[in-house]
Amino acid sequence: MYRTHTCGELRAKDINLAATLAGWAQTIRKFGSITFVDLRDRYGITQLLFGEELSAQLNENALGREFVLQVNGIVQARSSKNMGLPTGDIEIKVKSFSILNKSMTPPFTIQDDTDGGDDLRMKFRYLDLRRNEVKKSLELRYAVSRAARNYLHENNFMEIETPFLIKSTPEGARDFVVPSRMNAGQFYALPQSPQTFKQLLMVSGYDRYYQIVRCFRDEDLRADRQPEFTQIDCEMSFVEQEDILNMFEGMIKYIFKQVKGIDYAEKIHRMTWEDAMWDYGNDKPDIRFDMKIANLKSAFKRNGKIAATGELINGAGFGIFDNAETVVAIAVPGCIDYTRKQIDEITDWVKRPQIGMQGLVNIKCNDDGTFKSSVDKFYNDEKLKAIAAFANAKPSDLIFILAGTEEKTRKAISELRLEMGRRLGCRKKEEFKLLWVLDFPLFEYSEEDNRWVARHHPFTAPKPDHIGTMISNDPVITKAAEYLKHPYASIKANAYDMVLNGNEIGGGSIRIFQRDLQEKMFAALGMGREESLHKFGFLLGAFEYGAPPHGGIAFGFDRLCSILGGSESIRDFIAFPKNNSGRDVMLDAPSAIDEKQLKELSIQLNVK
Amino acid sequence: MYRTHTCGELRAKDINLAATLAGWAQTIRKFGSITFVDLRDRYGITQLLFGEELSAQLNENALGREFVLQVNGIVQARSSKNMGLPTGDIEIKVKSFSILNKSMTPPFTIQDDTDGGDDLRMKFRYLDLRRNEVKKSLELRYAVSRAARNYLHENNFMEIETPFLIKSTPEGARDFVVPSRMNAGQFYALPQSPQTFKQLLMVSGYDRYYQIVRCFRDEDLRADRQPEFTQIDCEMSFVEQEDILNMFEGMIKYIFKQVKGIDYAEKIHRMTWEDAMWDYGNDKPDIRFDMKIANLKSAFKRNGKIAATGELINGAGFGIFDNAETVVAIAVPGCIDYTRKQIDEITDWVKRPQIGMQGLVNIKCNDDGTFKSSVDKFYNDEKLKAIAAFANAKPSDLIFILAGTEEKTRKAISELRLEMGRRLGCRKKEEFKLLWVLDFPLFEYSEEDNRWVARHHPFTAPKPDHIGTMISNDPVITKAAEYLKHPYASIKANAYDMVLNGNEIGGGSIRIFQRDLQEKMFAALGMGREESLHKFGFLLGAFEYGAPPHGGIAFGFDRLCSILGGSESIRDFIAFPKNNSGRDVMLDAPSAIDEKQLKELSIQLNVK
Repeated sequence: MYRTHTCGELRAKDINLAATLAGWAQTIRKFGSITFVDLRDRYGITQLLFGEELSAQLNENALGREFVLQVNGIVQARSSKNMGLPTGDIEIKVKSFSILNKSMTPPFTIQDDTDGGDDLRMKFRYLDLRRNEVKKSLELRYAVSRAARNYLHENNFMEIETPFLIKSTPEGARDFVVPSRMNAGQFYALPQSPQTFKQLLMVSGYDRYYQIVRCFRDEDLRADRQPEFTQIDCEMSFVEQEDILNMFEGMIKYIFKQVKGIDYAEKIHRMTWEDAMWDYGNDKPDIRFDMKIANLKSAFKRNGKIAATGELINGAGFGIFDNAETVVAIAVPGCIDYTRKQIDEITDWVKRPQIGMQGLVNIKCNDDGTFKSSVDKFYNDEKLKAIAAFANAKPSDLIFILAGTEEKTRKAISELRLEMGRRLGCRKKEEFKLLWVLDFPLFEYSEEDNRWVARHHPFTAPKPDHIGTMISNDPVITKAAEYLKHPYASIKANAYDMVLNGNEIGGGSIRIFQRDLQEKMFAALGMGREESLHKFGFLLGAFEYGAPPHGGIAFGFDRLCSILGGSESIRDFIAFPKNNSGRDVMLDAPSAIDEKQLKELSIQLNVK
Repeated sequence: MYRTHTCGELRAKDINLAATLAGWAQTIRKFGSITFVDLRDRYGITQLLFGEELSAQLNENALGREFVLQVNGIVQARSSKNMGLPTGDIEIKVKSFSILNKSMTPPFTIQDDTDGGDDLRMKFRYLDLRRNEVKKSLELRYAVSRAARNYLHENNFMEIETPFLIKSTPEGARDFVVPSRMNAGQFYALPQSPQTFKQLLMVSGYDRYYQIVRCFRDEDLRADRQPEFTQIDCEMSFVEQEDILNMFEGMIKYIFKQVKGIDYAEKIHRMTWEDAMWDYGNDKPDIRFDMKIANLKSAFKRNGKIAATGELINGAGFGIFDNAETVVAIAVPGCIDYTRKQIDEITDWVKRPQIGMQGLVNIKCNDDGTFKSSVDKFYNDEKLKAIAAFANAKPSDLIFILAGTEEKTRKAISELRLEMGRRLGCRKKEEFKLLWVLDFPLFEYSEEDNRWVARHHPFTAPKPDHIGTMISNDPVITKAAEYLKHPYASIKANAYDMVLNGNEIGGGSIRIFQRDLQEKMFAALGMGREESLHKFGFLLGAFEYGAPPHGGIAFGFDRLCSILGGSESIRDFIAFPKNNSGRDVMLDAPSAIDEKQLKELSIQLNVK
């Protein structure tokens, strides 16, 4: 051992102890003929004092930042204590030292507010990982995984490792594939998730399974996606939805307690998918703040019926509202003083291509009960009052109204709500609000293929009382334009998402466990009998031998950690992440491989 | 929840309790008009009693083995207790039941001594996994991983996940590669181990790292190799070899205690690689039994010198010994009564192509102090006595002697020793003997390329007092035949293997942490400057910024579990293993992929 103690260990009680420490020179400060060095390791920082003679030796060695030092000395009281450090009462009076390794000057400073840009930090990730902020993120990640494992273990879950070299069954995202040398012309795929394996384990009677496991999706990477990511993957037998919600409500609360010291005492709020879409415009609402959507007019179907016909706004001569499929409003609390300039800025914000609205209507709710609106040419005070009441606005609120086609407008008002919440400081990093979203549609309509696709995945069961609808109807959509009238459009899934602060952190479902229903599902998704047998024959086969009712959930581990850590980006919580082109810039991977390797794998390049 | 209790839970104290159970019908026994069903789940088996009326209903449903049942009833005392079952005092008097799913007749019996062959069990692995033996193996695996994690956590190790999509740097085994769609013509590789990443984490100051992690090697599969396998991968900073040996001696003992209830009290025996080769003929000796090799004559170099010149056997007119490079013996205890037939059988055994010897000499050590030998034409009693004494033989022992070229003969005597140990019952499953093998050679000679290859891997440090030899000598081997005279042949590595019952279960080393020494190592392995920068530039770069002294170890998790579980095969301890052609016969993977997928990946097939 190169040390007797770590750099975070020594305290006032250790004064006069002989100690050997090893670590990195964080700072070097010369005071006349003596030198102070802050020595850093994973556990902390300890001040070293080099007297006159040793200080001279240090100078000869041109000691620099990030040099690796081993020092031997005596613990003594510091003349000026540093209250900011746990070791701040003491220092080491160095008796002898050894420079274990040198360091060039790092290309950026190893500090919380580093001067390194993203690209530079990623290229030198091994130095970036030295920064306290990154270290804390990885420590939090480890703490979350410990907590999850311990909770699951206590609840009789058993970790079982599933294979990484599996079969390519693309459905949804693209697979990464691996050419097989021993089976020329054939490929393995890397798993997008262990979904079918965990279901097989339920068929095998393992009852409660978990795995913290890497998954792979070859998607075009959006800002915060990684081609490889980690899931906390779980499955249980002989359960209904309620059992799973309770079990994993327990897990997330346990993680909050263990990792953040937070007692999340209240029952996690539950919301149907329809309510989420209606009140918040998206399926993962941030409920840290209210500001619900007022549906003045909407083409959204609730319980199979359209719920807002627009009586408050139609026929006033304002063509934009009259002709819009959807008109939705939010009342932003206390923003009556917004200037023209501020409102213009927000108008520009909703007109950006990412949002894509044509304009933004506003109503100011004056404290005296009167109203001022950008559309008061069409709507008198009485009508504005009725709209404001409908939007649940209070005096001094500012109402924003968007109009357009259903899907785009609902998405836009949802984004605007989040943006206004952000501006009002309603989205605090250290406030956590969990939510279960339930009763998702089982199917979504794919315009491209004029067929149904699974909203969750093809193994999700319909709600028990919707199974009949699924079995007794032909999935074929004869009139594309009227797909919403198809009985399948109203089938709800036995599926659930866990949402934290407006982010989906987990999702799962009760699974189909009957072969005939699973075959009906594959058929509903346009998968022929032969194709379904080729891809999932093993699962259909397994369902013939006593498959139990089962269900599960998977948590996006990277995302969960980043939210708990108060960060926008999952990359901070991954030791060696890839950039948005899927490259590891430190390794310079992916890269070309030898002709010999290609030949052995029975493939050749076909680059255009 | 489909149940109030599991099938392993109810006891005599629960009599008269109402209970709902769910599980699989293990056996169905009819007695007149009533029916007994053993209901099985992961936790145990509970007997169900169906009275007359319900029994009739059961018959209507043609209940069969492996059907999934839910039953509701009252716990009652069994008329005939089953002492073999924890639940054997009670049964459930069924009030109502529901068949949750049917089952076809399984293709083999779900029992410890199944009638299913290997191929059939693998194809229906989800049924094989129901067998108690396989379940116990996976439970043991989970227990080992829990124990390892807990020990490492308590010792300040931190799990950090490293990437799976990395850069191809083939050196030794072949990489599995993954074509990148977004970077046409380029490939990721799957890691053979996280070696360089864990070293980078040490450079980053994480001090103590672990990961239970999947690794991938595209090798031609021998009997008990898998293309994907799991390691317990560990690395520590500021340590010397002794620190690592102690830390992981602690870990394995903790695992023994937690998983097997065994107090492995004695200090793990340590042996140099030279002693292991000399005394046991291989670098992972099974020390559950003695039967050391007597080196009558050997070309093996010990401390750079040849240690056995053959004075006891040379010049007696027996050409085979006179001309042999190596003559080695073992004294097999108490086997003097071996018949001619038995000895012929063993002679045939050493002549098999896998062993490849020309013949087998034997000496019987009679109880009266005389000797009988297959070579007593050449060696009189006195000479045989001297040989027997040298071989440490006792009266009634049977000495076997092999002769031939050094490497082949040493390997053969090692195999023969293990075989005789097996025949004598010296290799008991439930006896465990650990061993550290130390001081491996740093380099091995590759005849094919007439250059040095790293015995462990290119990141292993030489023993501190051998660094000079490495730096000051040219690695080029001018005379291939005299490679053993090259100074590099005598350089020892700062490396260690942990051996359990004759199997290497873990191996590691102190690493090189200086850029210049690492560059010298790459050069010694015939890797040009450009190539080493292309492959490992990131690591060489990291060594410029204050790399600490560090070292580590990796345990073969599958192998460790199989030995602890008393099995010859690692496949039993992997939920979904591949066969010897690297195929998953259940999934039927690998398989062909679509033309569209190939095109997107910018590759095409090139199958001969």
